[in-house]
Amino acid sequence: MAHIVIMGAGIGGMPAAYEMREMLPQEHRITVVNRTDYFQFVPSNPWVAVGWRERAAVTLPIAPYLARKKIAFIAKAVTHIDAPGNKLVFADGETLDYDYLLIATGPKLAFDEVPGAGPFKSGGGGFSHSICHVDHAQEFFADYQEFLKNPGPLVIGAMPGASCFGPAYEFAFILDTDLRRRKLRNKVPMTFVTSEPYIGHLGLGGVGDSKSMLESELRGRDMKWITNAKTTRVEAGKMFVSQLDDLGNVYKEHELGFKLSMMLPAFKGVDAVAAVPNLCNPRGMVIIDEFQRSKAYRNIYSAGVCVAIPPVEVTPVPTGTPKTGYMIESMMTAICHNIADDLMGKPATAKGTWNAVCLADMGDTGAAFVALPQIPPRNVNWFKKGKWVHLAKIAYEKYFMRKLKKGTSEPIYEKYVMGMLGINRLHK
Amino acid sequence: MAHIVIMGAGIGGMPAAYEMREMLPQEHRITVVNRTDYFQFVPSNPWVAVGWRERAAVTLPIAPYLARKKIAFIAKAVTHIDAPGNKLVFADGETLDYDYLLIATGPKLAFDEVPGAGPFKSGGGGFSHSICHVDHAQEFFADYQEFLKNPGPLVIGAMPGASCFGPAYEFAFILDTDLRRRKLRNKVPMTFVTSEPYIGHLGLGGVGDSKSMLESELRGRDMKWITNAKTTRVEAGKMFVSQLDDLGNVYKEHELGFKLSMMLPAFKGVDAVAAVPNLCNPRGMVIIDEFQRSKAYRNIYSAGVCVAIPPVEVTPVPTGTPKTGYMIESMMTAICHNIADDLMGKPATAKGTWNAVCLADMGDTGAAFVALPQIPPRNVNWFKKGKWVHLAKIAYEKYFMRKLKKGTSEPIYEKYVMGMLGINRLHK
Repeated sequence: MAHIVIMGAGIGGMPAAYEMREMLPQEHRITVVNRTDYFQFVPSNPWVAVGWRERAAVTLPIAPYLARKKIAFIAKAVTHIDAPGNKLVFADGETLDYDYLLIATGPKLAFDEVPGAGPFKSGGGGFSHSICHVDHAQEFFADYQEFLKNPGPLVIGAMPGASCFGPAYEFAFILDTDLRRRKLRNKVPMTFVTSEPYIGHLGLGGVGDSKSMLESELRGRDMKWITNAKTTRVEAGKMFVSQLDDLGNVYKEHELGFKLSMMLPAFKGVDAVAAVPNLCNPRGMVIIDEFQRSKAYRNIYSAGVCVAIPPVEVTPVPTGTPKTGYMIESMMTAICHNIADDLMGKPATAKGTWNAVCLADMGDTGAAFVALPQIPPRNVNWFKKGKWVHLAKIAYEKYFMRKLKKGTSEPIYEKYVMGMLGINRLHK
Repeated sequence: MAHIVIMGAGIGGMPAAYEMREMLPQEHRITVVNRTDYFQFVPSNPWVAVGWRERAAVTLPIAPYLARKKIAFIAKAVTHIDAPGNKLVFADGETLDYDYLLIATGPKLAFDEVPGAGPFKSGGGGFSHSICHVDHAQEFFADYQEFLKNPGPLVIGAMPGASCFGPAYEFAFILDTDLRRRKLRNKVPMTFVTSEPYIGHLGLGGVGDSKSMLESELRGRDMKWITNAKTTRVEAGKMFVSQLDDLGNVYKEHELGFKLSMMLPAFKGVDAVAAVPNLCNPRGMVIIDEFQRSKAYRNIYSAGVCVAIPPVEVTPVPTGTPKTGYMIESMMTAICHNIADDLMGKPATAKGTWNAVCLADMGDTGAAFVALPQIPPRNVNWFKKGKWVHLAKIAYEKYFMRKLKKGTSEPIYEKYVMGMLGINRLHK
């Protein structure tokens, strides 16, 4: 019998635990390890940040749901991974042995790379907000309620090195919608500041004509933008941005005043993972083969935001390639198959479909994109806007939370919505 | 009893006279003063310039219509305003005392700011045409009839410092439509030359996605364009344009040959108004408070194109903010209420809704935009194209001319068309 340990109980780790449990014979043990005792549905954080969702609606206590499926759970932070010794070490000195380790920690938020960045209370004393964590979203909402009494400029965007741009656009559009509903939009100049070389690049070299569509949307919603933006420093109410030209030279220096700001940070690997010799690239992201397995340690797998993917292309300000939720689920499914095969002495064969599929809410409407494969040129490459995306995103949240509570990996949403988009999870 | 004098019998002054007459008790006198003895519906001038309208269809003799409503009329040019003495002085030396003065003169057309600009006969000896006045439109049409016999390049656009761009686009599209109908379009290269920083800025920082929509329209109609265009000189058949980049440096010098050209000028205040101490900004535009009242003279009000509005934003080539027809009517209504209140010893409370609402004809189709408020960011921000706008604009002309003949301020058009667009005239 084997012991499979999953580090991280996020939108990757939780479904992986359930799927593994369904797929593997009961003789094998599964343990989930997570820094907190609750699960958060990260894609809903933009809604939490404007008060459209309560924290309780997008979080779940992990222990009771995993227990029902006979999956062990440890709510502790891992301080060290002893990869040659096949064990995790916790802050309290206790250890946990494993036969297989699945690293699904998500990223470390690299606020420290830009002085003054990050949420003041929940992220390290900076002056720009984040929506990467439900705590950050709640901190934004607390400040937002004050902001509404005395509105002023908003700066929304993504820092140099960021790889996840969709939620920055999403959040800008949600804020615009919320402010228009409150009839306060006219008091709030909004600027979108992004390290992307152009609007709609998304870390993907664009998807369909995402450039025209998102530029049009920003104009239609009275937002200014700065692309090739190298944000160098944040102070209270002020952001310092060097705008580069396409050759990488400084084109213009900006000092942007703001009342409130949300800037997505660059991602790195979490410390315990980054510290394992030969496991990661210089940013601490896990280097894996096509079967999601570490190239250095044959019993370590990884999936989700913590794996290393090369950027789609070199950009004047560094940007990374996003890992979207659906791609993450696909990676997890592949790992479950590959561990099951390995246990039976068979070679790994399952590969995730690294397709970027993203549903971005825009408050009143939404945008969906599908990029198959993720790196251009692509076989499928489309970007569409419509009210149905807003509804599909709400449905996805409800579906995902229900799926975690039921402890099943039944693919109802995938079957219907993803089927509609022409997507298959596995690619053999 | 008080004497209210209205300077200017345009699309602002005329309805103001009628509305004031309806609102004020008969004991108060109202006098309209105008440089000419006729009214012209300026928005129809582009149609006059291509022969789609006769001069008679868009002009009216003023005296008989005002007389019917017991409103006095003087068809003379004012040479001096004695603001401390509360009187106007005419060219012939006669004077007119007032208790309240409403300045609704419209602008002085600043052709003199660009050497060689302005209509040859009716505007001061230049080589570019204008459609700001029915005389200019007729002069264009005279040259246009010659042009049709031997067509060549057309240059249409707006000069540095211009604030009214909609009619330039409108006229370019109308000319395109007219030339296509005549099957001559293939002999006429057309270039749109504008001081706007980008197509569709409109002096408003864009309205909805006016940039994409108007760029698409220009491309679809085979027109080239030059933005950030600082036109420096016009000679017979040749225009000299310095194109600036976004930082305000010269990017390219152009010498554009043309057979016929229409370039909207920058606006200033008319001489008599600009000369009044402390009344105006350096461009001669009247400085008013939120109740449309002069900040220097408590019995002077002003509305329409002659009031000072700050630009929406700084642009590489200077541009101003337009005052659209509906905004002007709204300002007038506010003034009527405020003078009525003042006569009764009550404080002014009425403010115009400074909303930009514009119907732009494009010959066969049209574009409408609504910007509420005028300065971005906005609560309502849309730009739509359709045949209905072409029809709505024709209907507006017919309605306005009929309204002036009947001498009523009944808001039929406002009630239905503006109601459809969700606009209210007063904002308290």
